[in-house]
Amino acid sequence: MRKCTMNKMKKHYLGICFLISIAINIISSIYIYYAVDGPWGEKNREINCQSSLTWSLKAAEEAEAVAAISCSGHGRAFLDGSISGGQPVCECYSCYGGTDCSELSPGCAANADSGDPLYLEPFWMQNAADTAVVISGWHRMSYHPIMSTELDKYIRKLHSIVGNAITQDRHIVFGVGSSQLLSAVVYALSSTTSSSPSSVLASIPFYYLYKDQTVLFNSKNFRFEGDAKLWQSNNSINNKDVVEFVTSPNNPDGELRKSVLRGKTIYDHANFWPQFTPIPGPSDQDLMIFSLAKLTGHAGIRFGWAIIKDKDVYEKVLKYICLANGGISKDTQLRVLKVLKVAIKEGGKPFLNFHITK
Amino acid sequence: MRKCTMNKMKKHYLGICFLISIAINIISSIYIYYAVDGPWGEKNREINCQSSLTWSLKAAEEAEAVAAISCSGHGRAFLDGSISGGQPVCECYSCYGGTDCSELSPGCAANADSGDPLYLEPFWMQNAADTAVVISGWHRMSYHPIMSTELDKYIRKLHSIVGNAITQDRHIVFGVGSSQLLSAVVYALSSTTSSSPSSVLASIPFYYLYKDQTVLFNSKNFRFEGDAKLWQSNNSINNKDVVEFVTSPNNPDGELRKSVLRGKTIYDHANFWPQFTPIPGPSDQDLMIFSLAKLTGHAGIRFGWAIIKDKDVYEKVLKYICLANGGISKDTQLRVLKVLKVAIKEGGKPFLNFHITK
Repeated sequence: MRKCTMNKMKKHYLGICFLISIAINIISSIYIYYAVDGPWGEKNREINCQSSLTWSLKAAEEAEAVAAISCSGHGRAFLDGSISGGQPVCECYSCYGGTDCSELSPGCAANADSGDPLYLEPFWMQNAADTAVVISGWHRMSYHPIMSTELDKYIRKLHSIVGNAITQDRHIVFGVGSSQLLSAVVYALSSTTSSSPSSVLASIPFYYLYKDQTVLFNSKNFRFEGDAKLWQSNNSINNKDVVEFVTSPNNPDGELRKSVLRGKTIYDHANFWPQFTPIPGPSDQDLMIFSLAKLTGHAGIRFGWAIIKDKDVYEKVLKYICLANGGISKDTQLRVLKVLKVAIKEGGKPFLNFHITK
Repeated sequence: MRKCTMNKMKKHYLGICFLISIAINIISSIYIYYAVDGPWGEKNREINCQSSLTWSLKAAEEAEAVAAISCSGHGRAFLDGSISGGQPVCECYSCYGGTDCSELSPGCAANADSGDPLYLEPFWMQNAADTAVVISGWHRMSYHPIMSTELDKYIRKLHSIVGNAITQDRHIVFGVGSSQLLSAVVYALSSTTSSSPSSVLASIPFYYLYKDQTVLFNSKNFRFEGDAKLWQSNNSINNKDVVEFVTSPNNPDGELRKSVLRGKTIYDHANFWPQFTPIPGPSDQDLMIFSLAKLTGHAGIRFGWAIIKDKDVYEKVLKYICLANGGISKDTQLRVLKVLKVAIKEGGKPFLNFHITK
């Protein structure tokens, strides 16, 4: 079209060029209308993308940049991780080294990361958009409320879907990991008169924390007395104040244990999830403890909960959590809420089946 | 231009219309080039904005939408807050009600939210972009490491900038609020022989947790014995094992207290920040406890730290934290890191001066 030269043109050529020019004008206008300012909202969407994300954009970009750092599947870079040259670098799992964790250390003994349920990482990566949490700088600055009612609600939904615990007419208390709840419930169940401390027992082999915490606190109200079965054969529980830990299912044999002593009983249900054992029906015990670490693999989120039938016991456990540390961090509660929402999606199927398909 | 009619036009009119049309073509082309595909990167930036944020975009949009809900300055909507019709709604502060918290309850007694340092919310809102945290669903799923080395580093930087504590050659342990550290350090400092429990004391008026925690744990290793000064007048500390809490500065009078008994001493420095008291110089005590709640107003983040000179004491405190709850949630540690980075920006001036300018 730029080759059209007015002076040499005949009138009809001029007319054709003019029509072409007009046509280009019309096409340009349509293009500008639809692509730039158009009614389909392309421009609006693009502008919204920039203008709707204001304060969270920088943090989101940072998080995605760190997540994109490759560590060869043998490590991970973190937002609060090691820094080199101003940039986060890979933190390699045991036995691996190098800037991208691709170097296997010769002669390294495996199993150094045992106990960490990192095998669930891929599930959370596949569900990245639904489990990401954005926390503002001013999120829940107050002490109150100690426990999120939304989170309480989702924990109840979770149990109802999985069918592993009755929560109706029960109280729920959150703890810093189920570990903190172990000592909180021993406190709540044990004697308050130092003249006759309660006996804390568990059947061997038992989780080391049952004993170690009791020794740590060295309370006048309770003392650890070892194996429940052995103790039973040497004692009568008549007139004895006993608190028994029952790990059900037991680790590592998966046995659904029952109380031996039939006194005050704490059901440690950390592993009572379909990925570890078939669920015969909802547990209806007076005091049940669950842990996020075993359910979703988030051991780094210190979060557990106790489901409690008796109101007085519930109030004592709550008092313990409040006095010991003023409750659970609000950021932790928000993150747990997000994680549980994904775990129970579609009746829990994608999450619970992930273990089977792996 | 659309009024030009070919049939009735003279040649020069046609020429003028043609030139106008060409000019429009050129202008349209330039507009399309710069505004849509242009070399200044407008389009690229818009496309990047959408394509570079993948998994974090949804969470970021959610967080900003909740933050934009107006609660009249008398409440706040939260991501994990109350829901109505599928949407988060305002949670009103005491004495306020209505969907946007604009209704003042008649005859309501004020001060129901006392103790919550919400007056710092505006600072964190002004620094929203720097303090937002985006946490992926797979962030630090492992138990290890218990404590972030980056956060440890920033706590030391903070003290060096503020000049309120010596951290060189000291150990730092994180706790679930400074509250948990109070009992962890009493454990670490007290007698391990139950035959002679340590005496725990503090000068009146003292922080209620000093006593309440000691009573809660009812340990064989220590017992609370009330006012340090009164106790001193009735006892000799020769051959006595004492653990003394010194709140410095004291609350509410701000006095920089010193140890009365000069035995084992815990300096509770929760309020030892320039916004509460002039800092005469860095504290050089054997055992110092600080709290995030008092420094930045984040009472809802349960986080405190102890600075410890003696290695054995440090190891005992760490053991306590590990056994009691397996450390501090990784999400909490990440959030604290973000907050502290902003608090120490520009030598801490914007943050520390915020209190003065308010």
